[in-house]
Amino acid sequence: MFRDWWAQSWSSETCLAISYRRASSATPNAPQAVLLLQREGDMQISVGILTISDKGSKGERIDESGGVIKEIVEEKLEARVKKYEVVPDEKGTIIEKLKELVNDGIDLIFTTGGTGLSPRDVTPEATREVIDKEVPGIEEAMRMKGLEKTPHSMLSRGVAGVSKGSLIINLPGSPKAVRESLEVVLPAVPHALDIISGRGGECGRQ
Amino acid sequence: MFRDWWAQSWSSETCLAISYRRASSATPNAPQAVLLLQREGDMQISVGILTISDKGSKGERIDESGGVIKEIVEEKLEARVKKYEVVPDEKGTIIEKLKELVNDGIDLIFTTGGTGLSPRDVTPEATREVIDKEVPGIEEAMRMKGLEKTPHSMLSRGVAGVSKGSLIINLPGSPKAVRESLEVVLPAVPHALDIISGRGGECGRQ
Amino acid sequence: MFRDWWAQSWSSETCLAISYRRASSATPNAPQAVLLLQREGDMQISVGILTISDKGSKGERIDESGGVIKEIVEEKLEARVKKYEVVPDEKGTIIEKLKELVNDGIDLIFTTGGTGLSPRDVTPEATREVIDKEVPGIEEAMRMKGLEKTPHSMLSRGVAGVSKGSLIINLPGSPKAVRESLEVVLPAVPHALDIISGRGGECGRQ
Repeated sequence: MFRDWWAQSWSSETCLAISYRRASSATPNAPQAVLLLQREGDMQISVGILTISDKGSKGERIDESGGVIKEIVEEKLEARVKKYEVVPDEKGTIIEKLKELVNDGIDLIFTTGGTGLSPRDVTPEATREVIDKEVPGIEEAMRMKGLEKTPHSMLSRGVAGVSKGSLIINLPGSPKAVRESLEVVLPAVPHALDIISGRGGECGRQ
Repeated sequence: MFRDWWAQSWSSETCLAISYRRASSATPNAPQAVLLLQREGDMQISVGILTISDKGSKGERIDESGGVIKEIVEEKLEARVKKYEVVPDEKGTIIEKLKELVNDGIDLIFTTGGTGLSPRDVTPEATREVIDKEVPGIEEAMRMKGLEKTPHSMLSRGVAGVSKGSLIINLPGSPKAVRESLEVVLPAVPHALDIISGRGGECGRQ
Repeated sequence: MFRDWWAQSWSSETCLAISYRRASSATPNAPQAVLLLQREGDMQISVGILTISDKGSKGERIDESGGVIKEIVEEKLEARVKKYEVVPDEKGTIIEKLKELVNDGIDLIFTTGGTGLSPRDVTPEATREVIDKEVPGIEEAMRMKGLEKTPHSMLSRGVAGVSKGSLIINLPGSPKAVRESLEVVLPAVPHALDIISGRGGECGRQ
């Protein structure tokens, strides 16, 4: 299903800043081509990952979700993960870390965790204080896709938005939900980054 | 269709704080089991219903929608309706009543009415002043499901959110729309209440 | 597909302030009736169009999207376009023009352009300063429908809302996306305008 979904977003007749090609490692007999999402001009995307978890930050839980994000963005976007950190569910700390990533010029910042209804969940509130422009459709799309699997998807309060030259996206906390959410948002990411950086401004209007 | 939908949300492979069992009243020959949604530990959910209607509050219209909510939450959640009131479309009154319900420790508060585009419709604005955290996915899910029936669903401006230990959900005004909306949101409610109350915090992260 | 979609929204069993009839120009052998969306009492809808484009405002690009909106609202709503203007992506100018249209008593105001992620895209922010009540479901519906065609639809940040007696809707910039978005929202527009103007207030509650 994963594969099918990518293929579908692929065939959409839009100004896609992405390309469809066989991975260099694909053997002639490979039944499926490996699909890669790329920016115009083949510029490599830099990624920052912020895992938000009280237990993770104290070493009481292994952060699987951060690793899942790394694996997927490296495979699908050929991106480079430049920063990775685990912090507790403290609003001030999250804001500070997000601002650091933005000021370091990271293109794409993913958070994982802290988007639910628990009193300690403050990731959306922290993110809203850092972004200049909210992009509600990114989170809507993740939630709507998630509803096909579980009604609990409607409880995810994550936000997405632009801060200076960076795109920040809150992902859910579980590795499974992270995988499903990335499947939904990654096809729009290369174009989004081209627009944010001013390299693809005309594209959406043609 | 109602039955099918419940069954579907049922089979989702998630950390569901709900259980599937035959109702005690079901006869051996009953073709369909009665499905019940429950919280962990079988704690009974307390419900408050606030019908918001100028005409209803003056006795010029019978409040059918409030009764529909009561019937459904008693059947599907085995919940107990502890408070029920009909108030006019006055922002101040709505805020006051919602705060009373929250301070009384009611778990789940439904409003019906006042979510449209008329100048008197102020339920979403009143609700936003009471909630600490908005949960946009709940309302998105109701609207998206509603669009399968009527394009007018996109005009519903209801919001949902957490205020202290209570979950507040704005439902539309008509009995029919109330039924359809509850069908969408109830499957996520028991888990939501467990998280809000701190009894299910780990669940979403596994 | 366009036709099918209209037909579907047509058959919805709701309080529709719209009517299904053959256009006067339809010949007896026409395979498809022309569908028209109308307000109660056959009142003609007045429309204002604001194209937001730096290049368009300097004459460096022809505004196709404004023409597409005009063509469709005249055909589908039998509406009359009373105002049409092209302005640059300047927040102050957009706010001023929207307020003018509202104060002129225009029923339905469409903007096109400026809803993306580029630093110059400020249409949603300008619109939020003019509306009294946001109607998030309108934009959600456009984005969700758009996702069937392209993942880039999730990047559209448009908002919709009511300002005094006017309904303001941000459409995307491209003629193609404008067409697809209007297909989604127009079926809800006549009822929305009846409610806003106080002529259909009871409808949604029955």
